[in-house]
Amino acid sequence: MEHRKILLVLADGIGDRPSRRLDGMTPLQAAQTPNIDEVMHGATCGLLYPIAPGVTPGSDTSHLSLFGYNPYEFYRGRGPFEAVGAGIDVRPGDVAFRGNFATVDSDLTVTDRRAGRTLDEAGKLAAFLSSELKLEGVEVIIRQTTEHRFAVVLRGKGLSDAVSDTDPHAPGEKLLASHPTATSADARRTAEIVNQITAIAHERLDEHELNQLRRSRGLPKANAILLRGAGSVSTLPSFPSKYGLSGFCVTGTAMIRGFARMAGLTAPLLEGATGDSKTDVGVKAKAAIRALRANEFVYVHFKATDAAGHDRNPELKVEMVQKLDHLVGLLLNELGDDVILCVSGDHSTPVDLGEHSADPVPILIRAPDVYPEGSRFTERSCAFGGFGRLKGEYLMPILLNHSNRITKYGE
Amino acid sequence: MEHRKILLVLADGIGDRPSRRLDGMTPLQAAQTPNIDEVMHGATCGLLYPIAPGVTPGSDTSHLSLFGYNPYEFYRGRGPFEAVGAGIDVRPGDVAFRGNFATVDSDLTVTDRRAGRTLDEAGKLAAFLSSELKLEGVEVIIRQTTEHRFAVVLRGKGLSDAVSDTDPHAPGEKLLASHPTATSADARRTAEIVNQITAIAHERLDEHELNQLRRSRGLPKANAILLRGAGSVSTLPSFPSKYGLSGFCVTGTAMIRGFARMAGLTAPLLEGATGDSKTDVGVKAKAAIRALRANEFVYVHFKATDAAGHDRNPELKVEMVQKLDHLVGLLLNELGDDVILCVSGDHSTPVDLGEHSADPVPILIRAPDVYPEGSRFTERSCAFGGFGRLKGEYLMPILLNHSNRITKYGE
Repeated sequence: MEHRKILLVLADGIGDRPSRRLDGMTPLQAAQTPNIDEVMHGATCGLLYPIAPGVTPGSDTSHLSLFGYNPYEFYRGRGPFEAVGAGIDVRPGDVAFRGNFATVDSDLTVTDRRAGRTLDEAGKLAAFLSSELKLEGVEVIIRQTTEHRFAVVLRGKGLSDAVSDTDPHAPGEKLLASHPTATSADARRTAEIVNQITAIAHERLDEHELNQLRRSRGLPKANAILLRGAGSVSTLPSFPSKYGLSGFCVTGTAMIRGFARMAGLTAPLLEGATGDSKTDVGVKAKAAIRALRANEFVYVHFKATDAAGHDRNPELKVEMVQKLDHLVGLLLNELGDDVILCVSGDHSTPVDLGEHSADPVPILIRAPDVYPEGSRFTERSCAFGGFGRLKGEYLMPILLNHSNRITKYGE
Repeated sequence: MEHRKILLVLADGIGDRPSRRLDGMTPLQAAQTPNIDEVMHGATCGLLYPIAPGVTPGSDTSHLSLFGYNPYEFYRGRGPFEAVGAGIDVRPGDVAFRGNFATVDSDLTVTDRRAGRTLDEAGKLAAFLSSELKLEGVEVIIRQTTEHRFAVVLRGKGLSDAVSDTDPHAPGEKLLASHPTATSADARRTAEIVNQITAIAHERLDEHELNQLRRSRGLPKANAILLRGAGSVSTLPSFPSKYGLSGFCVTGTAMIRGFARMAGLTAPLLEGATGDSKTDVGVKAKAAIRALRANEFVYVHFKATDAAGHDRNPELKVEMVQKLDHLVGLLLNELGDDVILCVSGDHSTPVDLGEHSADPVPILIRAPDVYPEGSRFTERSCAFGGFGRLKGEYLMPILLNHSNRITKYGE
């Protein structure tokens, strides 16, 4: 039996709980999903605990786990994922953060954590700060990712990722001072640097001409940076050599792109493939199908289901499930029997909770020789599927099994 | 979404196997349980391995596991649990035992391991021994718990819990000498002390006026002490700080009270809440409901199901399941949507076996946003429930998940 290729589609935050606002259904139950229903006629399903039962994963720790990297060993903060995804060449010794442009008032109280969210000037402001922030012995690299978001990398000797966030994580709170979270001199120094660049950034941004312009148009100034998720690069063992698979990643989300690149997958920027509800699934499907010609493993990430969960918007989440279904339909049209298809999620983001939860997520694997389930792809029916309960660490080995890429243990 | 409170009800030894004496049913199947059936209309169920598949737990190791303390790390013998539960302030360095008053004949053969079980004099005899047993350099504290049972604490320098039981665990056997189970001088010395106090206790008890009185009334003398479960205190990380939950425990069993107190839960003595079949479930329900006002986590322990299993009495176990159902009904009347309810057990004690077994136990969790199962709460139907199979270590994380107490790992 020849080797098959693997197409993995993960819908971010897709898992949910029965919601009164959907007559006791989950978005997966309430949505019309003709394509996924069709897939289920040739697929076996189950429930997947991305990390372990009772563990509420972030998208970062979940992706590590699902791709076979124990997050308790490899996770060193989200900053580096974001920075790599933004195209910064993060190196060992660097300390990276995720950042937001935000609006603060005169006493540094955060009035808008996203500076109005629509911030066309973000790219220019990031470039401006990158050139403006010159500190003795430390290089500061800032690059915008999406909307008001950016990544920051500090590069130099004697830095540490053991520093706290400056992001208060809620409007109405004051911008925080970063503190060392370890007793090392490096951590103390890094916290000082973070506080310095935060102060300088506020000063320069507040008087920046683009902000003067925003104010004159009645828009909130992007006059502060909020940093969080300090981390350093942990070298991930290469995915292609770990599994003997060349890999490609289709995503509109900087963090996932960063993760994929750190794991050694090809993960280009794709015009039109965004991390929000407007993402062009046609672009994604086309990129995935093209990538399958030259790669044995293609990963397609779909973000908008998670955002709808965070926004506590059941109707939008139903709509995004249907958009995912459309994406699956586009993929399906082009897939032969030499490709196995797995659809699942990286965690649950219930619409009534508005946050990630530890509930397991449905998973299906379509292959010519699995037991066809026939049921719908929902949290409830997958609870009784042929795969039973899986932990994230088993996902890759199981995909390798169904793609007939057997590495026998013993003889 | 606001945090919910957690009400955990564990019925000791509730799990069972199909019994011919119940027409091939388990006690849970044979019992009338209208209240638990009602709960199942808003609950998801599954099967719980308190420690792991194939591990037969004691109530002590099981409770450690279910509350999130790895028993292989934290279990140091049952004695300390019992002693703390008896109200003795056990300290690091102390060695504690569980004990029975027993009847021995002139050559120290145990004729009744429980001295007739009904032993109203037990409290007085324990106090008598506490004052009577004076040894050089060692303080001996003895306190009765329930019926013929007591806890013993040895306090002093150079003690070790590496000593064997004096309890032969079966009538007709001779009282055993304690042996060191490690090669240390402390262990040798402690075994000697145990043998000394066993000898002195026999001498003083045999001639005690209360025993003379018992003999005159045709009752077996309580003329020996049987010690078992030597252990020292292992400091448990505090449950309230581990989970961010203030906790309260309702139990009539000294060992469970001891465990709860060691974990930092409030666990008062409750008049009428006993560890036997006569326990007043009204008292327990009232205490639990009151405790839920001021605590985020309330644990209710129900012991009588286990005792019926040990007694190999299927009819009594069915009756005790129905008593548990009554307790659940009383709780249910007072519970709002802000409290999630979990009902399970700490292990199985099959009536045909008369001992603990490794069979998993049914578990249900009732919350406003789980999938209503609708089936009955039995070993068989829970085998096909939405939670699948759970290990004890996952219980608290899963309860935290359904109470919306999110600690996200990653971002």
